[in-house]
Amino acid sequence: MNGFTVGLGDLGNTSIQNVETLFAQANGALGVRSSLPILDSDSNPGSFLNAYYESHDIIYGENAYGYAKKHETMVKLFDMRSIDIEILGDNNLKLQKEDISLDMAKGILNEEYIYTTIDGKRIKIELESFASHFDRNVYAQKIIITALNFSGQLSINKSVKHILAKKDEDFDPRVKEASVNLIVEENKYTTPNSNLSFFVNFDEINENLEINEGESVTFKQIYQISRENKFTSPTYDHLKEKQIEIFNRFWESSDIEIEGDERLQKGIRFNLYHLFNSAGRDGHSSFGAKGLTGEGYEGHYFWDTEMYLLPFFVYTQPEIAKSLLTYRTNILDKARDRAEELSFKGALFAWRTIDGHETSAYYPAGTAQLHINADIAYAFELYEKVTGDSDFIEKSSDVIFETARFWYSYGFMSERGFEIHEVTGPDEYTALVNNNYYTNKMAQNNLNYACKLAKRMNVNIEEAAKWEEASNEMYLGYDIERGITKQDDSFLDKQVWDFENTPKENYPLLLHYHPMTIYKYQVLKQADTILAHMLYDVSNEQMERDFDFYEPLTTHDSSLSKAIYGVVASKIGRSDVAYKFFKEAATMDLEDQQGNSSHGIHAANMGGSWLGLLYGFAGLNINNGEVITHNNLPKEIKSLKFTLTINGEKREILIK
Amino acid sequence: MNGFTVGLGDLGNTSIQNVETLFAQANGALGVRSSLPILDSDSNPGSFLNAYYESHDIIYGENAYGYAKKHETMVKLFDMRSIDIEILGDNNLKLQKEDISLDMAKGILNEEYIYTTIDGKRIKIELESFASHFDRNVYAQKIIITALNFSGQLSINKSVKHILAKKDEDFDPRVKEASVNLIVEENKYTTPNSNLSFFVNFDEINENLEINEGESVTFKQIYQISRENKFTSPTYDHLKEKQIEIFNRFWESSDIEIEGDERLQKGIRFNLYHLFNSAGRDGHSSFGAKGLTGEGYEGHYFWDTEMYLLPFFVYTQPEIAKSLLTYRTNILDKARDRAEELSFKGALFAWRTIDGHETSAYYPAGTAQLHINADIAYAFELYEKVTGDSDFIEKSSDVIFETARFWYSYGFMSERGFEIHEVTGPDEYTALVNNNYYTNKMAQNNLNYACKLAKRMNVNIEEAAKWEEASNEMYLGYDIERGITKQDDSFLDKQVWDFENTPKENYPLLLHYHPMTIYKYQVLKQADTILAHMLYDVSNEQMERDFDFYEPLTTHDSSLSKAIYGVVASKIGRSDVAYKFFKEAATMDLEDQQGNSSHGIHAANMGGSWLGLLYGFAGLNINNGEVITHNNLPKEIKSLKFTLTINGEKREILIK
Repeated sequence: MNGFTVGLGDLGNTSIQNVETLFAQANGALGVRSSLPILDSDSNPGSFLNAYYESHDIIYGENAYGYAKKHETMVKLFDMRSIDIEILGDNNLKLQKEDISLDMAKGILNEEYIYTTIDGKRIKIELESFASHFDRNVYAQKIIITALNFSGQLSINKSVKHILAKKDEDFDPRVKEASVNLIVEENKYTTPNSNLSFFVNFDEINENLEINEGESVTFKQIYQISRENKFTSPTYDHLKEKQIEIFNRFWESSDIEIEGDERLQKGIRFNLYHLFNSAGRDGHSSFGAKGLTGEGYEGHYFWDTEMYLLPFFVYTQPEIAKSLLTYRTNILDKARDRAEELSFKGALFAWRTIDGHETSAYYPAGTAQLHINADIAYAFELYEKVTGDSDFIEKSSDVIFETARFWYSYGFMSERGFEIHEVTGPDEYTALVNNNYYTNKMAQNNLNYACKLAKRMNVNIEEAAKWEEASNEMYLGYDIERGITKQDDSFLDKQVWDFENTPKENYPLLLHYHPMTIYKYQVLKQADTILAHMLYDVSNEQMERDFDFYEPLTTHDSSLSKAIYGVVASKIGRSDVAYKFFKEAATMDLEDQQGNSSHGIHAANMGGSWLGLLYGFAGLNINNGEVITHNNLPKEIKSLKFTLTINGEKREILIK
Repeated sequence: MNGFTVGLGDLGNTSIQNVETLFAQANGALGVRSSLPILDSDSNPGSFLNAYYESHDIIYGENAYGYAKKHETMVKLFDMRSIDIEILGDNNLKLQKEDISLDMAKGILNEEYIYTTIDGKRIKIELESFASHFDRNVYAQKIIITALNFSGQLSINKSVKHILAKKDEDFDPRVKEASVNLIVEENKYTTPNSNLSFFVNFDEINENLEINEGESVTFKQIYQISRENKFTSPTYDHLKEKQIEIFNRFWESSDIEIEGDERLQKGIRFNLYHLFNSAGRDGHSSFGAKGLTGEGYEGHYFWDTEMYLLPFFVYTQPEIAKSLLTYRTNILDKARDRAEELSFKGALFAWRTIDGHETSAYYPAGTAQLHINADIAYAFELYEKVTGDSDFIEKSSDVIFETARFWYSYGFMSERGFEIHEVTGPDEYTALVNNNYYTNKMAQNNLNYACKLAKRMNVNIEEAAKWEEASNEMYLGYDIERGITKQDDSFLDKQVWDFENTPKENYPLLLHYHPMTIYKYQVLKQADTILAHMLYDVSNEQMERDFDFYEPLTTHDSSLSKAIYGVVASKIGRSDVAYKFFKEAATMDLEDQQGNSSHGIHAANMGGSWLGLLYGFAGLNINNGEVITHNNLPKEIKSLKFTLTINGEKREILIK
């Protein structure tokens, strides 16, 4: 199919590790980086199981009460892709990529490599591979090896190789070494500390064969990794057939056709493809910041899932959305414990976690981001609005009630209204402030939704009245003189960051300035007040003033930023600006704009690019089950065609 | 001499480790905990060299740019006190303290112990010991062993024993394991990481002797520890004679006679005695938070030196004050580097350090306490005012200029005035705020002093004009409605801590609540605005309103708190309140009020108790070389007699 293929040519001149990330294959349970069949010294091969982690004590230079106690790090498992090939009497091989082509329509990766020996013998390696969406325990690979210009003896070996822990490299707080020395008993592998096991099942290749010039040999490999020691015996061809069927159905529900820009068309499909691949499906896993494509952010789940990814799933793959929300209901008890540990009522979800415990070792940009509670409540509400699945919501209602309880216990009523202090908003270049606008706005909604839900279910009636009052009286800071929404109580009192004298190489700021230095200035890493405006309308004039105030202060050092500014630019009719932001969001990983796609995809931005198209260019909203759209298309895009699933029914929409 | 002796009876029922701290012997270079001659399982023996530390990388769960890189930990050296005694055929010994008596007049510790065997044989051990102030490399001990009720063979062995690293015990962020495995080459000991060496020189005791009932055997031991491998051959008796002379002179210059309260008289002398003992004398060491008596706070130097201890030294032992200030001039280059690392000009002194590098692993209650810069400048200014030693000040003027430069670069001019953002004041129960009153007030003085000094020396004239403007325009927050000085921009907006529902066992709060939880309330660990009022007069009415507002919000969880509130209570004529605070400050360690004297003395509080008497009850101030006093004596104290050294001349003062 046209526009469904991404090849090496689409990436430009990029690194081996970026390629590994971008062409990684995943199915929500299992992810495999697309490393070279013969490793290069720059290779960073690996596979991951969603929610499979090792834990370590967090060591603090200065500890304090209530700090997160354990790291949780997604474990880098096996190299399932490298092949040992020997040609008798001539072992020095040079690998050359001929072509890599990702068939997104089918969910299958095709690769072709040429090996050349010093003596000039040439071998072609063709690979076809996929992480099966039919049997999520499976990574499948077809290998065809052809002797191009010689006859001789060939030895081919392929096993699944343990990945050993590497030494620390350059300092980057956003990555964490993920390889762990697993305990092996037969086919069972166990982490030493977290004591989590999985089982493997696969056949090795051990072949010594005579090959004639022009001849090929083919292997079809099934690698099975499962948290339970139960394996089926699928055939490669059957799995491939099913893979194609599943991807067909996926695109039927989720594709977006952009008329007018092939590059963006490819970019958005690439993003949706990865979203579909890395989302957990079992209610006990979610969507890591880098999906299942790399070890960045330790495989942790953040608020990104709810605020950047969920909308796409809610509107087009509601079953996946439900599974991601179910994950939150399954960790609710840990969130309750955390609230108690902090001396408050209700539940506080961990800022970053895999199994539900708070693992953020720097609370000012971790636990203090209380907004995650309201983000989760928001996602449940959105799910209900779009799917109409009130049964699930009522069954999960404790998530809504307990988060509301937390707000009510953490905040307090003053003369100004209901205030929420000592929090960090989405913009981590400002920390530990009072009345962050985004946080208060989201908490307001959390309290309000809890109140409505309580009334509807006729439970918690007394509390609901208090929640309602807190919601109604929520303090939202505003600077009358300047006509600006206040990001927080003190933001407007600060000095403006000296952008003019900040050299380009000093971005992202967080890698070049002490947090304290950054916090004291008016400077944003990412959309904050503007994100609230994306979700909750204010007047166009207000949105414009805030946009014009906050956008120039934003470095977009976070990949979570541009897409949101893009949506709001659409809302205020600045389609040229929206287009510019969308373009960058749509191709952020393809073009390695953040310089660290090697750590894994920027999943939130991928979800953000969907928001840019749907919330932005298509003006999508939902009100009482009614879909609202608005044509905000920039001049570069002629039309937008997409399918949504509303109340269980498919709706095709064309904006032009 | 009367009132110069502290015995076991003065302590009440206390722990072995508290005794070790309280009777520790030190001379500014070397400190020895007064552990039992036969160790108990609860013993924590040890000796320390001032500024002798080992370093370790600080490990961060989440690292960031500009974080402190290395721990520095004062090393616990030898057990120099334990003796091995065997009575042939009867080894099971029980130790009993008969008496311990600290002769503060002479600087000598006397101890008497009885050993009893299972068979009822009894040995008396008498110890006389001191850390020599004449030869600061020496710890000297006279040991008399008497067979009380038997004759027989006695084996006596005494060597200087290495102290091995212990396992972590209960969590308390305020202590740190200090024992290190030193590298030993002959008599040279070296830390593996910081690569600092010292040398030892001492004779061991290895005696097997026949002893008759009633007979004694005496040993006079000299233990020498030096950073250089040069040793003299002092005799015990000569050192003892010199020790007595030196302490005679010390008390002549520094004693305070309190008429009316023997307990307080003893308490204050005990405090002054320890201050004299633990202050560094060589310009490369300073005064650790616990002096040389224990391993609390890793032996680090904080702002305590300048704000709590220096006044005592400046007014009574100016040579020691000068040495402590010289330490700051010697680490100025490291402070310059730190300012640059944080992207500002001038110099920023480390919040906690030994060799000058910032070692605070939690910057919100570390580096963010920028006020240390101004505290240091304040101490230099006080030294000049009291001693008239302008030569030293002009030689050290870079400390004043560079700290002023830092303020000018860190703060900024706004419509409100010169503002200083993102700082933590002395009260660590509020962090990372804007315009902390104490910080701004102290910075104002720092800038002003720098300006005057620049003009006087005719240097930095252009900068001086800017410093003057910043100082003149310094923003100092005030709440007109309530008539209250604002601790910072946001403090008055916060909720009041729920003191009523906080159980007694939850103090100190920092051991029972997450920092974020504490920060969001109006609650103070220690004097903050009130400390500024102690230093810089405001109207009595203002001081009263602020006292009445802030004191009830203060938990005094820090030992740096009560003394200051006491002084200000004196200033506003509340001598009953002042007396209560002073009483607690004067006997804080004697009575183990903080529950952790075992970690070492609370040196700042000891200095604070001097402030309570002199700044508080005697209303001491200095203006243009003129000493000002005021009788603020509480009814319990009839008179106060003390000596000061002003402009090099002794002045005896009587307040009655």
